[in-house]
Amino acid sequence: MVDDAPKRIEIQDRILKENEELAEENKNLYRGHDIKGVFNLIGSPGAGKTSLLESIIPRLEKAGIIEGDIATARDAERVHALSVPVLQINTMGACHLDANMLAQVLPDFPLPEVNYLFIENVGNLVCPTGYDLGEDHKVVVLSLPEGEDKAAKYPAIFRASTLCVLNKLDLEPHCGVDVELLEEDIRDVNPDLDICRVSCESGQGIDELVEKLKQLSRR
Amino acid sequence: MVDDAPKRIEIQDRILKENEELAEENKNLYRGHDIKGVFNLIGSPGAGKTSLLESIIPRLEKAGIIEGDIATARDAERVHALSVPVLQINTMGACHLDANMLAQVLPDFPLPEVNYLFIENVGNLVCPTGYDLGEDHKVVVLSLPEGEDKAAKYPAIFRASTLCVLNKLDLEPHCGVDVELLEEDIRDVNPDLDICRVSCESGQGIDELVEKLKQLSRR
Repeated sequence: MVDDAPKRIEIQDRILKENEELAEENKNLYRGHDIKGVFNLIGSPGAGKTSLLESIIPRLEKAGIIEGDIATARDAERVHALSVPVLQINTMGACHLDANMLAQVLPDFPLPEVNYLFIENVGNLVCPTGYDLGEDHKVVVLSLPEGEDKAAKYPAIFRASTLCVLNKLDLEPHCGVDVELLEEDIRDVNPDLDICRVSCESGQGIDELVEKLKQLSRR
Repeated sequence: MVDDAPKRIEIQDRILKENEELAEENKNLYRGHDIKGVFNLIGSPGAGKTSLLESIIPRLEKAGIIEGDIATARDAERVHALSVPVLQINTMGACHLDANMLAQVLPDFPLPEVNYLFIENVGNLVCPTGYDLGEDHKVVVLSLPEGEDKAAKYPAIFRASTLCVLNKLDLEPHCGVDVELLEEDIRDVNPDLDICRVSCESGQGIDELVEKLKQLSRR
């Protein structure tokens, strides 16, 4: 067995450095078009990222969506019904979006038409964390049935995010998860993380979440 | 920007080739100790992999567990209560187990004492798929609240697995997911995949799952 470790680390460092440079270019592009807020939604498969977009987009003036998916356009098809600009990135198997994927598609996106841009990352609580897309805020989406211990077990994304959306609150009486314990677990990892409790099913907390997203955006 | 793509692909290919060689060595080690079945459990964070182990281990004669976690020993602590051999691999941030991580710890594991070895991978429906650990079977664990479309959106693991455990069936009346549609989605991706519907909460389907795991093991 040949030990490639040093070469691997060197390549990995260069990949991340390149990503940072491209993220900076993306950020300049967003700012140049005076977009008020760019949000990178990160969560496990099935945490409810697409449902969340369906709930909040109609309550925001001039929003747009970039959908990241490994293999299908299903989420993009769902959010197309919202009649806002939508663009889909198929990662062809890759486990996260990176700044280069964004840089490739941004010229085709009607940036001047949007105030708020939502980027739905690939369903994965681990890998997307390290790849800045030039967003203003990472938003971690966690659904109640995933359990009380996710922040402790996947701390990086809870540290990197500005906001945590605690989704599927309607399942609280059924899934045996203690919301107070769960939030305590999150605060142990990141005491400064804002937490919004919502249910896309019942609509609970959606208004407050929309208000929070506006607060996080530039005026 | 320097384009490292060819070098990256070369390194990636070598990593996977090395992994395959080490997986083969691990497999020889399992077989040398006459282990009947080695199962690699893969699923999203919160799909219920640890709860599943808590349900099935007491019903199998001489089982053992290797726990893969990014940051904590919480799962290992939970399954220690089962009084079977348990070993924990902390991946230090890595998004999947690989054959080398297993090769490093297997000498410390009492392989002669187990008939069935369960490896709980890092919670991630994407990255663990490509890394063979020398297991006999990959088992994909999907929980009902994750939604109907996960096989279409994350097809690789559904193609690579021998068995799909459909977990948290007790939430069916509450989470608005149609189990028939979900199974159809799975069969579209892999018509040969065995599916066991279970609830660790109610115990539904656990006996049948244990029976299936025994069938998949060498006699």
